[in-house]
Amino acid sequence: MHTTASPERRARPGGRAARLALRGAAPDPDRKPVRAGVSGGRYNPLTEPDVLAIHRAALEILATVGIGQATAEVVAIATAQGCRLSPRGRLLFPSALVEDLLTKAAREYMICSRDPAHADLHVGGSRVHYATSGEAVSVLDPATRRYRPSTLCDVYDTARVTDALPNIHQYGQMVVPTEIEDLVEADINVAYAALAGTTKPVEHAVNAVGSLPALMEIYATVAGSERRFRDRPFVSFGGCPIVSPLRFAADSLDVMVATARLGLVSDIAIAPQAGATAPAYLAGTLVQVVAEALACLAVVNMVNPGCPMSFAAWPFTVDLRTGAFAGGSAEVAVLMAAIAQIGRFYDVPTTVATSMSDAKMPDAQMGYEKGISSIVAGLAGANRIMESAGMMASLMGVSYEALVIDNDMLGMAQRVVRGIEVTEETLSVGAIRAAVLGEGHFLGAADTLKSMETEYLYPALADRSSVQVWTADGASTIEERARDAAAALLAGHFPQAIAPEVDARLRDRFPIRLPEDRMRPAAN
Amino acid sequence: MHTTASPERRARPGGRAARLALRGAAPDPDRKPVRAGVSGGRYNPLTEPDVLAIHRAALEILATVGIGQATAEVVAIATAQGCRLSPRGRLLFPSALVEDLLTKAAREYMICSRDPAHADLHVGGSRVHYATSGEAVSVLDPATRRYRPSTLCDVYDTARVTDALPNIHQYGQMVVPTEIEDLVEADINVAYAALAGTTKPVEHAVNAVGSLPALMEIYATVAGSERRFRDRPFVSFGGCPIVSPLRFAADSLDVMVATARLGLVSDIAIAPQAGATAPAYLAGTLVQVVAEALACLAVVNMVNPGCPMSFAAWPFTVDLRTGAFAGGSAEVAVLMAAIAQIGRFYDVPTTVATSMSDAKMPDAQMGYEKGISSIVAGLAGANRIMESAGMMASLMGVSYEALVIDNDMLGMAQRVVRGIEVTEETLSVGAIRAAVLGEGHFLGAADTLKSMETEYLYPALADRSSVQVWTADGASTIEERARDAAAALLAGHFPQAIAPEVDARLRDRFPIRLPEDRMRPAAN
Repeated sequence: MHTTASPERRARPGGRAARLALRGAAPDPDRKPVRAGVSGGRYNPLTEPDVLAIHRAALEILATVGIGQATAEVVAIATAQGCRLSPRGRLLFPSALVEDLLTKAAREYMICSRDPAHADLHVGGSRVHYATSGEAVSVLDPATRRYRPSTLCDVYDTARVTDALPNIHQYGQMVVPTEIEDLVEADINVAYAALAGTTKPVEHAVNAVGSLPALMEIYATVAGSERRFRDRPFVSFGGCPIVSPLRFAADSLDVMVATARLGLVSDIAIAPQAGATAPAYLAGTLVQVVAEALACLAVVNMVNPGCPMSFAAWPFTVDLRTGAFAGGSAEVAVLMAAIAQIGRFYDVPTTVATSMSDAKMPDAQMGYEKGISSIVAGLAGANRIMESAGMMASLMGVSYEALVIDNDMLGMAQRVVRGIEVTEETLSVGAIRAAVLGEGHFLGAADTLKSMETEYLYPALADRSSVQVWTADGASTIEERARDAAAALLAGHFPQAIAPEVDARLRDRFPIRLPEDRMRPAAN
Repeated sequence: MHTTASPERRARPGGRAARLALRGAAPDPDRKPVRAGVSGGRYNPLTEPDVLAIHRAALEILATVGIGQATAEVVAIATAQGCRLSPRGRLLFPSALVEDLLTKAAREYMICSRDPAHADLHVGGSRVHYATSGEAVSVLDPATRRYRPSTLCDVYDTARVTDALPNIHQYGQMVVPTEIEDLVEADINVAYAALAGTTKPVEHAVNAVGSLPALMEIYATVAGSERRFRDRPFVSFGGCPIVSPLRFAADSLDVMVATARLGLVSDIAIAPQAGATAPAYLAGTLVQVVAEALACLAVVNMVNPGCPMSFAAWPFTVDLRTGAFAGGSAEVAVLMAAIAQIGRFYDVPTTVATSMSDAKMPDAQMGYEKGISSIVAGLAGANRIMESAGMMASLMGVSYEALVIDNDMLGMAQRVVRGIEVTEETLSVGAIRAAVLGEGHFLGAADTLKSMETEYLYPALADRSSVQVWTADGASTIEERARDAAAALLAGHFPQAIAPEVDARLRDRFPIRLPEDRMRPAAN
């Protein structure tokens, strides 16, 4: 991991130029063992007839049950285009209208980085990206094994730790600033803290439609102008416009309509829980969440045809013994993979929410719950896998150690998703013949040296040493090594992601709460 | 987990009858959330042209480079059927002969349990089973964080712990009895200790062809007769008949030929290491290991056409920075998944070796390395996933805690592999309508109660409690809970898997070293 101990070492534009020069010397990024946008989709949890059956059932639900509690504005827009209101006042979507709007829907969108050292997200097709997000309300103190309330500083700190982790492609808001009560002030400060912490593509929640003017001004100021922001948008945002089962949430619906009018990426989330707010049968939960996501897609495309948006069907489950949210379950893993496949069927960009854990500590449970769910979402070709790093305790908490560990885990997942390149060269028939009839092994062979940096991923924290070396080195767990790595990043990695003159302007215009002295290494 | 505190509670045939009665009352096993033999194969890491390219390259290698150091017996058998010797004395396999033998190869085989409470393994198709195995030489003491040499008692103890873990379908030999030097005595004692520890299907290594008569007598004695063993074989065994790249190992080749003559399952393992004993390009390693596995398949089917055997291509990798074996790597995970796909292409039963960790402690690294590799092998449809529980430290060590944790992990993997059943009932259109227009939620709905035990897997050790409850309960990690669970099983679970009169006969005939007083709970 690259850590910048002092801001001067990464001042712009020198730092960027230096990194660009370095990149010129590095291997072709397409040859790196893992990268943003590796192609997934080689796993199909559903058969084609099953996908069609779910699609038809979702259309039937939209046409006959519809979505409740649409705002007057949305009722007016939708009925003008062919929707109608049921006697109970539910908005019904004729199947032909939904199918028609699906043909108009955006096939892809971009969320850009603010530094060529990080990849842009080209969201769509079967390209896979891993992102943080989750809006937890607490943070794990590993020393005491207690969770404490999350703060605005945690938004900034999780952003800059993520900035240094190469296998996480987008920083999405991981925690809520629990100390800020005003929703607009919270939205403004979260946007600022995230953009100050990383030049990677950013995502955050927008809790109030009233925040939008201020947010647009912040983005424009950081970009240099609103035009430059629109040309290369580096933030996606949204809310939860559906209250399952099958009702609109007025505030988030307002945000969705407003962002659609602006042509911004509608980066929403629709999160029913099977057995509570959706059917307990997994297939039934898919039907409902697909109906809910299609309703949002229909509204956005009625407001602004082709507006970029996420097909953001996030089917969760509860543990039916207790009613507890079980985001780390097998059922969530396979549901989210199914959504990725359904998104490919519709050819619309997907987000899913998976690769989280119900564990409270960064332990083996965390490892396997996240490992299994992160890889199946990737193999199924989910475009942006949200909540994929650092999320613990059924989304209630964040762990910095987990965030750093998950970077290694997501590297492993991406290497598996990338698969195996088969070419005349890689088939190695000549190399096998030469080795067998020659040295009797492949150590030091030309292909071995050549493929070291292209075929193989070398983890940062995972231990591959011998038992003897590991014992001599102190017999550590990855949690212990992650604690050191996270502490080093928190103490030393300050990306200076907002230039000083821009920062001054923002602090002048808005009630920015993040203390300036938190944005550089402690004086000591 | 079911633990038998006293042997009397599980004496036969009363215990078996009682369990059968219980089973009658339990839900249809086909409706359980996970089970042995769940259908995989919905993930294809390779394209069809890539599979064909690898197949053709492997045939080219077999025809032109061949396999070195065949025994005189195998040379005689093979040249009589169309193979020839190269000027360097390497055995060359004409492509048409290999293709012909592939058509004769067994499509499936059975490894049976000795108790209806456990599933038989019906190996073939895309049915997925998870097994232990690995033959480590050390065991982790979690209190001291030190590995100690493994002993015969560890064979017995790992077998009986596995006996109690429902998501592991076969006990394969996890450790070597390092205190026994004589190979035949080791083979006999390992077979005895495994069969004494579990009634699940068993697998163990056979180190010396000279062990076979004694082993056959042990199996026949336990079964009641050799005929009964052959009708329902409950042990598979084999060795490593290939030294990569592309040479036979005489001793294991002798065992393979002998077991093929006996018509027993040839349960071999072929384990090249990419970058050391196979090409560094993953595709090239697949070519070589497929050639090596096809050579073994050819020999077995020349000796006894249709003899049950495993297509046991186990492509491993080393960390090319250090030369260290990296069994927990992403590259191994995707290689093993590719082998599962190639096995389905040939329609032959596969074993793979994956779901192991390079970590030394049962930590998050262990969790994600095993989580990712266990699920991709299952999704790819590997028939028997060996070394899938308890294996640590790059196969050098075993952890009892890991074994118990991995049972939960493998349950999660199997639930994902099983996928989502789509039927008119599960699509839930009527249930959605009723809930939306009625209660507004699905809690307590008829389908919710009905699907609780069929759709959802409830883990044994994984924590889903709230932060508050978890904190109040002592803020444990899964490693700590697993320590308690493993200790309870070791203290109390003694399956009495060999009836007393059979045990007496075996001890009379063979130098059985496992002390009888180790086979019941300590007196206190």
